[in-house]
Amino acid sequence: MKNTFGNNISLTLFGESHGEAIGAVLDGLAPGIPVDRDEIARYLTLRRPAGAISTARAEADEFRIVSGVFEGYTTGAPLCIMIPNADTRSRDYSKTAELARPGHADYTAECKYHGYQDYRGGGHFSGRITAPIVAVGAILISALRAKGIKIGTHIASLAGICDRSFDESRAAEEIDALNSTAFALLDPSLEEKMVSEILAAKADLDSVGGVLETLVIGMPAGVGEPWFDSVESMLSHALFSIPAVKGVEFGGGFALSEMRGSEANDALRMTDNGVITETNNNGGINGGITNGMPIRFKVAIKPTP
Amino acid sequence: MKNTFGNNISLTLFGESHGEAIGAVLDGLAPGIPVDRDEIARYLTLRRPAGAISTARAEADEFRIVSGVFEGYTTGAPLCIMIPNADTRSRDYSKTAELARPGHADYTAECKYHGYQDYRGGGHFSGRITAPIVAVGAILISALRAKGIKIGTHIASLAGICDRSFDESRAAEEIDALNSTAFALLDPSLEEKMVSEILAAKADLDSVGGVLETLVIGMPAGVGEPWFDSVESMLSHALFSIPAVKGVEFGGGFALSEMRGSEANDALRMTDNGVITETNNNGGINGGITNGMPIRFKVAIKPTP
Amino acid sequence: MKNTFGNNISLTLFGESHGEAIGAVLDGLAPGIPVDRDEIARYLTLRRPAGAISTARAEADEFRIVSGVFEGYTTGAPLCIMIPNADTRSRDYSKTAELARPGHADYTAECKYHGYQDYRGGGHFSGRITAPIVAVGAILISALRAKGIKIGTHIASLAGICDRSFDESRAAEEIDALNSTAFALLDPSLEEKMVSEILAAKADLDSVGGVLETLVIGMPAGVGEPWFDSVESMLSHALFSIPAVKGVEFGGGFALSEMRGSEANDALRMTDNGVITETNNNGGINGGITNGMPIRFKVAIKPTP
Amino acid sequence: MKNTFGNNISLTLFGESHGEAIGAVLDGLAPGIPVDRDEIARYLTLRRPAGAISTARAEADEFRIVSGVFEGYTTGAPLCIMIPNADTRSRDYSKTAELARPGHADYTAECKYHGYQDYRGGGHFSGRITAPIVAVGAILISALRAKGIKIGTHIASLAGICDRSFDESRAAEEIDALNSTAFALLDPSLEEKMVSEILAAKADLDSVGGVLETLVIGMPAGVGEPWFDSVESMLSHALFSIPAVKGVEFGGGFALSEMRGSEANDALRMTDNGVITETNNNGGINGGITNGMPIRFKVAIKPTP
Repeated sequence: MKNTFGNNISLTLFGESHGEAIGAVLDGLAPGIPVDRDEIARYLTLRRPAGAISTARAEADEFRIVSGVFEGYTTGAPLCIMIPNADTRSRDYSKTAELARPGHADYTAECKYHGYQDYRGGGHFSGRITAPIVAVGAILISALRAKGIKIGTHIASLAGICDRSFDESRAAEEIDALNSTAFALLDPSLEEKMVSEILAAKADLDSVGGVLETLVIGMPAGVGEPWFDSVESMLSHALFSIPAVKGVEFGGGFALSEMRGSEANDALRMTDNGVITETNNNGGINGGITNGMPIRFKVAIKPTP
Repeated sequence: MKNTFGNNISLTLFGESHGEAIGAVLDGLAPGIPVDRDEIARYLTLRRPAGAISTARAEADEFRIVSGVFEGYTTGAPLCIMIPNADTRSRDYSKTAELARPGHADYTAECKYHGYQDYRGGGHFSGRITAPIVAVGAILISALRAKGIKIGTHIASLAGICDRSFDESRAAEEIDALNSTAFALLDPSLEEKMVSEILAAKADLDSVGGVLETLVIGMPAGVGEPWFDSVESMLSHALFSIPAVKGVEFGGGFALSEMRGSEANDALRMTDNGVITETNNNGGINGGITNGMPIRFKVAIKPTP
Repeated sequence: MKNTFGNNISLTLFGESHGEAIGAVLDGLAPGIPVDRDEIARYLTLRRPAGAISTARAEADEFRIVSGVFEGYTTGAPLCIMIPNADTRSRDYSKTAELARPGHADYTAECKYHGYQDYRGGGHFSGRITAPIVAVGAILISALRAKGIKIGTHIASLAGICDRSFDESRAAEEIDALNSTAFALLDPSLEEKMVSEILAAKADLDSVGGVLETLVIGMPAGVGEPWFDSVESMLSHALFSIPAVKGVEFGGGFALSEMRGSEANDALRMTDNGVITETNNNGGINGGITNGMPIRFKVAIKPTP
Repeated sequence: MKNTFGNNISLTLFGESHGEAIGAVLDGLAPGIPVDRDEIARYLTLRRPAGAISTARAEADEFRIVSGVFEGYTTGAPLCIMIPNADTRSRDYSKTAELARPGHADYTAECKYHGYQDYRGGGHFSGRITAPIVAVGAILISALRAKGIKIGTHIASLAGICDRSFDESRAAEEIDALNSTAFALLDPSLEEKMVSEILAAKADLDSVGGVLETLVIGMPAGVGEPWFDSVESMLSHALFSIPAVKGVEFGGGFALSEMRGSEANDALRMTDNGVITETNNNGGINGGITNGMPIRFKVAIKPTP
């Protein structure tokens, strides 16, 4: 399926970093979902490289909803969002220079597309293509929130500096706090230290990597498939499409491999609100299917090449 | 697609642990691939729980190729392999007992299937369903080998005991050695220690976890897609379907997140045999596409529940 | 997707006419659907060539439900039905002879599979592969009936002899009558004439073709997609997979092409039971989506080669 | 998959008749296919309602290639074509009026989308959405022509007036002639009569239907699948997505149902150029797979509602 992902709701991406525009088609949405342009804009701003800290380019990311929304609500027809590329002609790109960047996809693109790829700024491989994903994500996050499902992500570690982990007993508040800040940390006191690591690397013409941790709450139990569309399979499929992601783990992840079964198993307990588990080493997923506990996963991001 | 995976070649699974049979349909194979029944049998034996070391059940795993093979070669039509379940009626299963096993999918299956699932021995969630995957895998491994692609996996760690890593300069020999042993270690001297950890846990009615590392050599450069069917996405989708897998990382994986870009990038070098990279932190994949270097990934296995 | 069809519920076929068995995997079924083995057997018997009238082979078509059914109900896991091939070794097949049959797929199979196909009796192309479709169809028909959806098919014409058309005002009774007879005609008095045409052709070592007409009642309005998964698209995709089908039309079909819009449009009328149309030239489908009227389509069957 | 069709090459549609733009994403194209903007423009002009003859609206259909083409060639990344809607605000649309049009999808859209659909001018159901299909079709037709595959379509009948059929022995010339005319007839002398039928119906505020016949030459033998992706299945799936198509037949189609096998079978003959068939009643397809003869099919178009 290449540039399309998803069964019930499917996302198709198009565009190159220095072409006319980048965009996405989101198909399979129910009709009647409210679409909040301000929330889309807010997420697109969060995605943008933040001034001194990150890479240089900081485009305005204006977007146009081309189809699928009528009078503020989804119609049920495919929703196309387009983000024009501004100022793409201001710089001379030398093909040779572009094709030599280690760690980038330039060489593999050359192998796959035999010289026909749009090599300027990474073309279709550019991290900029995540902007339409963020835009449609804003719509989906809002639709999920209306169903009681909330998603929060923090920088679990950056350049070896580790944030504390989620406190699942206060998950809703922690997620809300993360979603109202630009530098997502559970322990905000670490921001200064992390930023100075980023700037130090930058001063050395270098870069840092990190780990992101995500918590999803409110998912009902019973979602997912045993083979092959487990929740882990579907999420990892999507996550590993994001450039620079080189690892994904759920719940205890790699640390589970050093535990014994007696520690790693999450004992079930019956409560007034239904069955819960005492611990959450399985990250809310057993046999590929949600068990009603928070879904928790971590994603390893390699340093920007 | 639920129980079907793959675009060009697709695999459909069926069966329950204590039903009549389990099996797989493999579709999209080219005609004319030789099918070696002995190699399938050998892989099925390797998959089987090994006597004292692992769990108790040790079925014979006879298999029947029901379709898709004619006079020893694939026909191009769907290949169905079926593995009958033997001795499935010898034990009384209590539904209540089955549904209380922590760490298993029993509870999530109950949430999803509302009591209609075949709960005996995990039913369709049983690790036994990996047997047909192994059987078709034997055919595919043999077909890939004929194209110069070899795959080797070792136990990178077990109960915290770590094997050494692959030496990529001797990859072919190391893979051949792994594929001719039953306890896959690059440093075979660790076997005794690992087995005694397994037996110690077993004596405590407990279990251990581990990490598997896989190396694939001979893959041409240029295979994969930028969005969403990157090599990492497709492999992780399949890997996270295997019960007990809770983490997947490629190349340096999570360790990359603590490196700087200058360390993590794999410098390109032109050789007489084409472009290679000095290091292989990206595990043979850039931008979702193979770069011709060995593909390397690790999989975290939680302890058996 | 080759041998798999369907999005929410998907059907995978396997097997060859003279292999060990033929079968199907039906995935995506809800748990808790009752499975009536007698109804499956009854439909399989209807499918069978009927003695003197049709071609010679009349196998018993015993079937085994290998997975996906537990204590009489679907489990929600893939349902595999297998039909063993009996007496497949009783005849010598000459490859040369097989590959020369005009009108059959022998030559195109040779082009596609380069000599590796199982050529005996048409192999995977055999009309016999419709048996597993019929078997799973019996389960689905029963599940639909429980939701108030009924399907009836009659021989609209055979060797040029035309049955009368459905009377949509008596659709339920007509469908019930068709489903309780072996030679499906709305005007049963035509049976004798049709059978004598079949026998006459047979006496000449020849065969006849015909047209089937199907009516589906009870489908709610609003099912289908505008692009590309219209009800017409999905049905025709499935119907044209059946060997010997060379034409499909919905509602007025080809005859609509000679009408003017004023005749062909189905005027809407508001009734106490909701919106209906005065005529049903569109066969219950507008813009690819059901309108609540009976779905009506015809299928052209070429004479058996 | 809803608004996406195709396995190796997939087409995703978006847009509404009176929204900002309509468009398509074509994914899976090989890199290096030349893209001729003039040919796209020429096909878009052919699609346009032709002045007095057809319906009133005659938009300019300017198009923009947003992605996937670089320096005149496909890149291998998704190709997005967008066609802006001009002058969409010039008319007042009354929802009530729109929802009452018989023969249109207005009512079924209301059933499916519960009032959230963009009802203006048919919205996502509008025949105007075929414009992006035509645009990408122009690219594909050109790519196929470069491989020796040619496609021609003529008006086989209109308002009951029948054009003659293809002469397959002169197929290439006939196709070339059809592709260089605006009113596609094998017997151009019928144009005047057909146009006067259209105008007569129009004068009566009515409309006419017709049948299109297509011939494809140069397709190699061996393309297609037995189940379920037969050439007939895939083509009919696409064809029945086009608004107003109510019937599809291949080769002899419905007429075959009145023949005997001895007439309908296409006798094979060995020639210096390989195997051919004496007749082509199967329309170039046996068992769902091309046999190297011209592919021939007819499509019934109901009168414009």
